[in-house]
Amino acid sequence: MPQVTVAIQGERGSFSEEAAQTLLGRDARVLPKETFADIFKSVAEGEARYCLAPIENTLAGSVYENYDLLLENDLHIVGEVNLRIVHNLIAFAGTTTGNLRQVYSHPVALAQCGKFFKRHPKVEKIPFYDTAGSVKMLAERKVVSAAAIASRVAAGIYGGRILKSHLEDHSENYTRFLLLSRKAATPPGANKVSIAFSTRNVPGALFKCLSVFALREIDLTKMESRPLRGHPWEYFFYLDFAGNVKDSRCKNALADLSEVTDFLRVLGCYKSGKRRQ
Amino acid sequence: MPQVTVAIQGERGSFSEEAAQTLLGRDARVLPKETFADIFKSVAEGEARYCLAPIENTLAGSVYENYDLLLENDLHIVGEVNLRIVHNLIAFAGTTTGNLRQVYSHPVALAQCGKFFKRHPKVEKIPFYDTAGSVKMLAERKVVSAAAIASRVAAGIYGGRILKSHLEDHSENYTRFLLLSRKAATPPGANKVSIAFSTRNVPGALFKCLSVFALREIDLTKMESRPLRGHPWEYFFYLDFAGNVKDSRCKNALADLSEVTDFLRVLGCYKSGKRRQ
Repeated sequence: MPQVTVAIQGERGSFSEEAAQTLLGRDARVLPKETFADIFKSVAEGEARYCLAPIENTLAGSVYENYDLLLENDLHIVGEVNLRIVHNLIAFAGTTTGNLRQVYSHPVALAQCGKFFKRHPKVEKIPFYDTAGSVKMLAERKVVSAAAIASRVAAGIYGGRILKSHLEDHSENYTRFLLLSRKAATPPGANKVSIAFSTRNVPGALFKCLSVFALREIDLTKMESRPLRGHPWEYFFYLDFAGNVKDSRCKNALADLSEVTDFLRVLGCYKSGKRRQ
Repeated sequence: MPQVTVAIQGERGSFSEEAAQTLLGRDARVLPKETFADIFKSVAEGEARYCLAPIENTLAGSVYENYDLLLENDLHIVGEVNLRIVHNLIAFAGTTTGNLRQVYSHPVALAQCGKFFKRHPKVEKIPFYDTAGSVKMLAERKVVSAAAIASRVAAGIYGGRILKSHLEDHSENYTRFLLLSRKAATPPGANKVSIAFSTRNVPGALFKCLSVFALREIDLTKMESRPLRGHPWEYFFYLDFAGNVKDSRCKNALADLSEVTDFLRVLGCYKSGKRRQ
């Protein structure tokens, strides 16, 4: 069987790679890219079969760039995974929690480990462009008295030692990733649908849109809005709901919705990621 | 009359200062602060009477940090302004469009002037922490062959020359700012209300919330969601709608809403900013 290639944003060992392994197994070939736009492009041009885009974090919120890229590209959501974010303090030979002076990581990861830094006031936080990238940098430069905050997978790839695990302030820290493909496909067991739509800017427009789901007691799991460029104070809406596009209940809801929207696109129908791991 | 003090994020001459002048006149004293959290704190502690927080841009979307700060602090929205964002190319003696080699500005401003950089491929974009701050830096260092992208007000404050105005790709570029105060007050002519609420995570919950407005044909102008920390996959909703909290129609809608929400807070009732300038 040919090896599946999946494009991720960031260095090898990022949380995206951990999510890719969870969803596609350890044999999947990970293709690191610099930006989110690059991972979408990689799939659109056929370089990678899939890409894995983080779409929301339960502490930081939605990843708006990826919401925009979903509409700018013609890819399809074919899978989802909710990854528990566990931050690890990773160092190399010679560094211990005793002689630690600097900790490198992405600013969001540093911010999510505030309690650790309060308990260790002499340890300096140094913002870096990537979590796994900070482990890679320490591995290359062999800086003593420095550590990085990153995933368990990053420690493995670059040969770092985990000095301390679960550095994060909140244990309820999950990132939801979407698996995107050029080909539309509704996998077996698909039970979730993502759509995007826009409405006329009139009173009650959004209420009417939601009524097509309420009428059928369809459960909405997420709603997001983004500005409609060139139309100030108007918005696109993104909606996730429980269902399968092949079921009549869902088909009818989408048919009704198309009557009251100016624009409607089904972004994908896929198997929902586990909500607790 | 004592001078009114308004805290803004960023250096003197930022778009926040332009917004402050539009709303409070040129006599208002502007108090620059480093972070958004600092401007909220400045008002909460009584150092400034007001602060001015950017809440959304018609191209980039919502400023999520300020949405979170609205709920974390006990301030009240008492005004609003929609500022047309005009980007100016600002330089000092010796620099012309002919010898221009570097342009400094905030990454968002640089990204919003993409067409200018396509027409001038030899000009390097250099990301800087602040738009007005980049003008200030050039004024201090007298760098020849460099310019900054910032507001007209910044050019005036630091004595820079506007080489070119309207550098932005999209003319429909507005930022909406909220004026916040420690004291709750409903100003004369108030016609807009902002609220935040959370619902039980059950099918139809959001639909029921919107029904209290649809029933009364109340126009919703913006809806935003943010994660409820510690409750993965649950959300706070922020809603703006046309009305005045003293009118019975609005009072009844809010009373109905309190029946179907777990949490409800009125963030303010204020005069809507002009939608075209």
